[in-house]
Amino acid sequence: MITLSSDFGTPYPAAMKGVLCRHSDTRLVDIAHDFPRQDIRTTAFWLREVLPYFPPAVHLVVVDPGVGTDRAAIAVRAGDHALVGPDNGVLLPVARELGDREIFEIEYEDANSSTFHGRDVFAPAAARIHETGVDSMETLPDIEPTGEFEALRFPEPTIRESAAAGEILVVDDFGNAITNVPGGFLDAVDEIEVNGTSAPVEPSYAHVALDRQLVTVGSHGNVELAVNQGRGDDAFGVAVGDEIRLEK
Amino acid sequence: MITLSSDFGTPYPAAMKGVLCRHSDTRLVDIAHDFPRQDIRTTAFWLREVLPYFPPAVHLVVVDPGVGTDRAAIAVRAGDHALVGPDNGVLLPVARELGDREIFEIEYEDANSSTFHGRDVFAPAAARIHETGVDSMETLPDIEPTGEFEALRFPEPTIRESAAAGEILVVDDFGNAITNVPGGFLDAVDEIEVNGTSAPVEPSYAHVALDRQLVTVGSHGNVELAVNQGRGDDAFGVAVGDEIRLEK
Amino acid sequence: MITLSSDFGTPYPAAMKGVLCRHSDTRLVDIAHDFPRQDIRTTAFWLREVLPYFPPAVHLVVVDPGVGTDRAAIAVRAGDHALVGPDNGVLLPVARELGDREIFEIEYEDANSSTFHGRDVFAPAAARIHETGVDSMETLPDIEPTGEFEALRFPEPTIRESAAAGEILVVDDFGNAITNVPGGFLDAVDEIEVNGTSAPVEPSYAHVALDRQLVTVGSHGNVELAVNQGRGDDAFGVAVGDEIRLEK
Repeated sequence: MITLSSDFGTPYPAAMKGVLCRHSDTRLVDIAHDFPRQDIRTTAFWLREVLPYFPPAVHLVVVDPGVGTDRAAIAVRAGDHALVGPDNGVLLPVARELGDREIFEIEYEDANSSTFHGRDVFAPAAARIHETGVDSMETLPDIEPTGEFEALRFPEPTIRESAAAGEILVVDDFGNAITNVPGGFLDAVDEIEVNGTSAPVEPSYAHVALDRQLVTVGSHGNVELAVNQGRGDDAFGVAVGDEIRLEK
Repeated sequence: MITLSSDFGTPYPAAMKGVLCRHSDTRLVDIAHDFPRQDIRTTAFWLREVLPYFPPAVHLVVVDPGVGTDRAAIAVRAGDHALVGPDNGVLLPVARELGDREIFEIEYEDANSSTFHGRDVFAPAAARIHETGVDSMETLPDIEPTGEFEALRFPEPTIRESAAAGEILVVDDFGNAITNVPGGFLDAVDEIEVNGTSAPVEPSYAHVALDRQLVTVGSHGNVELAVNQGRGDDAFGVAVGDEIRLEK
Repeated sequence: MITLSSDFGTPYPAAMKGVLCRHSDTRLVDIAHDFPRQDIRTTAFWLREVLPYFPPAVHLVVVDPGVGTDRAAIAVRAGDHALVGPDNGVLLPVARELGDREIFEIEYEDANSSTFHGRDVFAPAAARIHETGVDSMETLPDIEPTGEFEALRFPEPTIRESAAAGEILVVDDFGNAITNVPGGFLDAVDEIEVNGTSAPVEPSYAHVALDRQLVTVGSHGNVELAVNQGRGDDAFGVAVGDEIRLEK
């Protein structure tokens, strides 16, 4: 199985699918092609949330603000999975979830201005790794182990017994504002102050009335600022990157 | 084959696909993941229009405004198909189209606040029903026949010989306003009054000039208010739920 | 393999997938279903860019402003591929890329007003051609060679040694304005005037600072007006169909 993730919108992903289909009969699964443009951190967050639910697969990821510079192309073996994409950190957080990881550089011919890296570099590499097998990808002539790569870590919150200082990591399609504070901080708490304003802590959206604010633990396991059938980001007045302070 | 329908946008559907791929090699087909948020009736309408064109399949449907309440999870066997989703009526109209139906409750563990029902309850149930076979789903230990479930029926129009009173059921992506009045009402009619204003009855959009209004029978078989290469809802001034009166 | 392209948005493409799945177990691949509504030329451009990357396949294309008129349904055999869609030119530019082409008319029953051509005419034809084989599609009783069909050619630029007069063919999702001027015009050029204003010629977006304009050769091989991580169409003040004059 090969999964595809990008910020390409449409129809560029189809060219990558064509290349993959040329090289392999394996199942193709789209993760998303509307990740926020050139947003490495948000994409890395979602990959970490979603890819661990898949059986062993090769995951092709092209969110690549550095395309056209000398940034490397890499493949990461993580557990039974392989991840293929640009060396900008986007593959790293999910790799830590998938298992022990080894990082390889993918060599490619000097690109010219009409090179479409997703189609001409990353998709062929993902197909060859899939066909060779994740376990033996280093037998491919253009793949070499490397110790140099871009790291990416999400910001760590500061957690004290009665207060936590964190950050809005991501706002999802529903408008839920997902923080970096682990859900355990809300254990046995009924009400919490978010940046000075009180809100109820509830197990799910439907536990408050329509359009009312709540603080909950999302399916990712983190504290989330939400509104029942509405947008939490608007109601709490927060956006990606904003600091949040939670007080019990 | 397993089909997937939701109002999740992106990238949450990918987590469901991961779970399905873990349990089954069968073909996955996306119906849509941009059904209007928490809109049971519109989703039910489209499922009824689209799913009957499929060969026997398990259809996973997650449009679930009641998530986090005590609403049940159900599976419906309808003809050779199975439908899996929340007990809120969304599965019922299409089930009537697909054949005789039997309704089962799917038992699941008490959820906590980080349960993602689509991923953690419905997708595993759909995969197990697919692997066990639609015919013998009741052999699964967590699936029991039930007689209690949420019904959903679309509003019925009032049809007289020269007039019909109905409702806008759905507006599609093109802006066509789809009513609940059966297309047969327009047989041998050339011109009709819609809420007091006259419009031509035509077999297809291209039978009127660009940007002109028409009344036609859509591919769903119902009377539809449309504009050639434009939006019927705007031109006729109607929205979902509005009453319409058609007079010959 | 059968690929699907349309301007249907959602969820109408799913009905076509249902019909295809009924007739064939082959792999289905979505190219895009959000091609600009009724825009034959833009769709034809993207098909020409994307489909040649696929292995031999049947390509179902439904962008069909003439639906409901007497426009014919056609199938084009081009190399090892077949293309199925309305006779409005949308299939022709990519057919020239895919190889020698032969054009067939697909006969179909008189449609009535609730005919959905994508679902009821084109998808069944694509499935039958796939099952019969592209090489022997003329053995199907409803498929006849034809010499009459709608042509479509993109406008040709006028290229002189130091100047080119062309047109904006397409603006992609990123806002890159793609011209009809072949990329070779920029060989060994560092700076160029676009409609009288100078801009640097660069091999890739990242060679200029964030939000700065550049002229480059896109992955399609044509001259493209772009902005690093921004919208070239806005920055250069151009839209589809606009004339552009490039001077070295």
